[in-house]
Amino acid sequence: MSKKPGIPKGTRDFSPIEVAKRNYIFSIIKENFEKFGFQPIETPSFENSETLMGKYGEEGDRLIFKILNSGDYLDKVSMDELQTINYKQLTSKISEKALRYDLTVPFARYVVMHQNEIEFPFKRYQIQPVWRADRPQKGRFREFYQCDADVVGSNSLWQEVELVQLYDSVFTQLRLNGVTIKINNRKILSGIAEVIGASDKLIDFTVALDKLDKIGEDGVKKEMLEKGISEAAITKVQPLFNFTGTISEKIEKLAQLLASSTEGMKGVEELQFICDNISEIGLQSANFDLDVTLARGLNYYTGAIFEVAAPEGVAMGSIGGGGRYDDLTGIFGLKNMSGVGISFGLDRIALVIEELNLFPETVTKTSKALFLNLGLEEAKYAMKAIAKLRQEGIKVEMYPDNAKMGKQFQHADKRAIPYAVIVGEEEISKQVFSIKNLVTGEQQTVDFATLVTLLK
Amino acid sequence: MSKKPGIPKGTRDFSPIEVAKRNYIFSIIKENFEKFGFQPIETPSFENSETLMGKYGEEGDRLIFKILNSGDYLDKVSMDELQTINYKQLTSKISEKALRYDLTVPFARYVVMHQNEIEFPFKRYQIQPVWRADRPQKGRFREFYQCDADVVGSNSLWQEVELVQLYDSVFTQLRLNGVTIKINNRKILSGIAEVIGASDKLIDFTVALDKLDKIGEDGVKKEMLEKGISEAAITKVQPLFNFTGTISEKIEKLAQLLASSTEGMKGVEELQFICDNISEIGLQSANFDLDVTLARGLNYYTGAIFEVAAPEGVAMGSIGGGGRYDDLTGIFGLKNMSGVGISFGLDRIALVIEELNLFPETVTKTSKALFLNLGLEEAKYAMKAIAKLRQEGIKVEMYPDNAKMGKQFQHADKRAIPYAVIVGEEEISKQVFSIKNLVTGEQQTVDFATLVTLLK
Repeated sequence: MSKKPGIPKGTRDFSPIEVAKRNYIFSIIKENFEKFGFQPIETPSFENSETLMGKYGEEGDRLIFKILNSGDYLDKVSMDELQTINYKQLTSKISEKALRYDLTVPFARYVVMHQNEIEFPFKRYQIQPVWRADRPQKGRFREFYQCDADVVGSNSLWQEVELVQLYDSVFTQLRLNGVTIKINNRKILSGIAEVIGASDKLIDFTVALDKLDKIGEDGVKKEMLEKGISEAAITKVQPLFNFTGTISEKIEKLAQLLASSTEGMKGVEELQFICDNISEIGLQSANFDLDVTLARGLNYYTGAIFEVAAPEGVAMGSIGGGGRYDDLTGIFGLKNMSGVGISFGLDRIALVIEELNLFPETVTKTSKALFLNLGLEEAKYAMKAIAKLRQEGIKVEMYPDNAKMGKQFQHADKRAIPYAVIVGEEEISKQVFSIKNLVTGEQQTVDFATLVTLLK
Repeated sequence: MSKKPGIPKGTRDFSPIEVAKRNYIFSIIKENFEKFGFQPIETPSFENSETLMGKYGEEGDRLIFKILNSGDYLDKVSMDELQTINYKQLTSKISEKALRYDLTVPFARYVVMHQNEIEFPFKRYQIQPVWRADRPQKGRFREFYQCDADVVGSNSLWQEVELVQLYDSVFTQLRLNGVTIKINNRKILSGIAEVIGASDKLIDFTVALDKLDKIGEDGVKKEMLEKGISEAAITKVQPLFNFTGTISEKIEKLAQLLASSTEGMKGVEELQFICDNISEIGLQSANFDLDVTLARGLNYYTGAIFEVAAPEGVAMGSIGGGGRYDDLTGIFGLKNMSGVGISFGLDRIALVIEELNLFPETVTKTSKALFLNLGLEEAKYAMKAIAKLRQEGIKVEMYPDNAKMGKQFQHADKRAIPYAVIVGEEEISKQVFSIKNLVTGEQQTVDFATLVTLLK
């Protein structure tokens, strides 16, 4: 085979520098998850198909990667069947497993399966790849990581407060200042639906309202009328067209608007609790705002809805999102388990940090020094020193071959290794090391103790 | 759906404690990989089928998990074909992708694809899951992690020396003292084949020889004769039946035995270099031995062969292995790229550490303190302190609900959280915190600064 090999579309190889940058983000997310009391779990990459199918809608079912049964999977399919069957029917006969599509359904499955071992409320985090047969495009891949933190088994709104703090804490530590954490509440949206007189128009309504900045009040109203929302309804929710001010002012407007809706007022109350406490405790660097157009996963969330926008000036969709779902585990037969959680979009966060040039230089640091290989005896002397340096925790290596010095220096240079250590006959006889700073060109000859100090 | 959900056979859920233990091992392996100058890469979970198929033999092809094409995959299969086709032929029509089976073939593919960006010699490590449709049994799973370190692009035997040191360094840091790193060389085995007069009998020969401890010299010889190895050949390699002594003595015996084989003598020379230098530099805690029956991946390795055995007294197969393969990337059209690498068997290492009770207690540590939730005002006071403690890097949490104190204490207990912090009206009015050591039962009331010191 001499055809140059490739990889499946929508997938990626990660070079050492890319892995280092991604690990920098992962480690900060992980550190904060743990600081907030979340504990890690991991679930298998593939689940039984029945666990996943039907949980993400028809579109989702289509995008789930299915795994072919091993062995002669046609064994149980008769010739007659084969002639009449369509591909969806055949799939259920020749495939029993499917790749994880998100982390939430496997988490719900985990909770139900291990309910007797789990101490509730259970704060879990999970950082694992998921797979979707989506059409690949910029920033959208067929294999990508999700980083989720969820609490299951408590209705306390303190958790919503904490999740906002958690977002703030992660983005502050990533030095990604000025992100905006947006909050809304499903019950507010239900209240609006009540007020506009039709819950089936709610999506049309929020989609139209979301365009306010772009097409103006008249444009939005025109679109709403076209979608069949009545003039009277639009008049009723007029305050939403001028929905500015502080969070308190916004909540006040909502309270007036939704006064007649019990569920809407419950949403107002929940928002009030969360926003008051966030305001009282304070955030480190994130902006916090109430956005009534926020409706992600509308059919899924039952209380708070979260989304995080990149700092102003960076063209990027949301870099995080989440919310409350009152019945997380009901799909697997365990009722009355409320869950609330947030997710971090690793790939987009990485793109934003790259664009703003916020990766610390130390992230990609490689070995501290390259020992040149100047011959057998020299290499032996070097390797003994290297063994001791590594025991001190210092990253060092020797060029494996006795190549020309120029080539060896070039290797250190290309690898961005900051020091070269040169040991020839003279160094060995005096039991010293010549160390060259490859940035400044400065060179000095030192004993082993000094070498340790210099490289530490 | 009320049927209790399950997971596919051969796969596992990992609880927080299990993840923590595994991460402890991963992080030590990673730290040492980097200390030795290896850099991380990651490759996609699935590859194009043509990249994987045919690389692991017929058995391997069968054990590779294939992914069904998305959409109507039957579209391109005619009815006539469907009736006459067998499942293997159908697979190639309805599946284009397959799950990673090991990390070596994807690495070879990576090197060929990115050869112009890579600075050789390239020391890469890779820690990712692989999937095999093997029959699950104790310690063998369908999804498991491999941890590989390989160098590609240099023939230097210093790398073999370093890989032995790397094994020693990892197992020493894991406090797994007394592992035995075994070495052999493919060229020694070829030399033996020459001497016994039949290279096709080599596997029979080594398998039989490996039973020396169990069935004794006579038993081994009997088995060899049965396998068609001649009496004369067996006499020739008689020294192998009494293959004891120091490594130097063993190498001396091999040198005599293989004197007539050019390739065998090359193997002796390589072994000599590696063993001499290991002996001169020294290892920290591992035993190092030459084992001529070691033949793993016989058709694959071309030079050194490594395997690591668990400390004596622990019944477990090898916990690591590797070797030199002169033509790593030839399968993808890039010739003359020698590679040498080792692998760590995470699952087995975890089992051994568990059996020997060597996981540090700190591995599974959770939050440092649980703040009890005694009401709204108390919770507010607590949450403000918690926010500051977390900014100090301290892991703390509050019980989310205002439940009975007994229940909250029980939660701390079940989660093995060492401290409870109690704030009631009195604490708030005095701006202090009552902190209870849940192990000793000791309780004291302190100001915030002291609280920080206590929990740090």
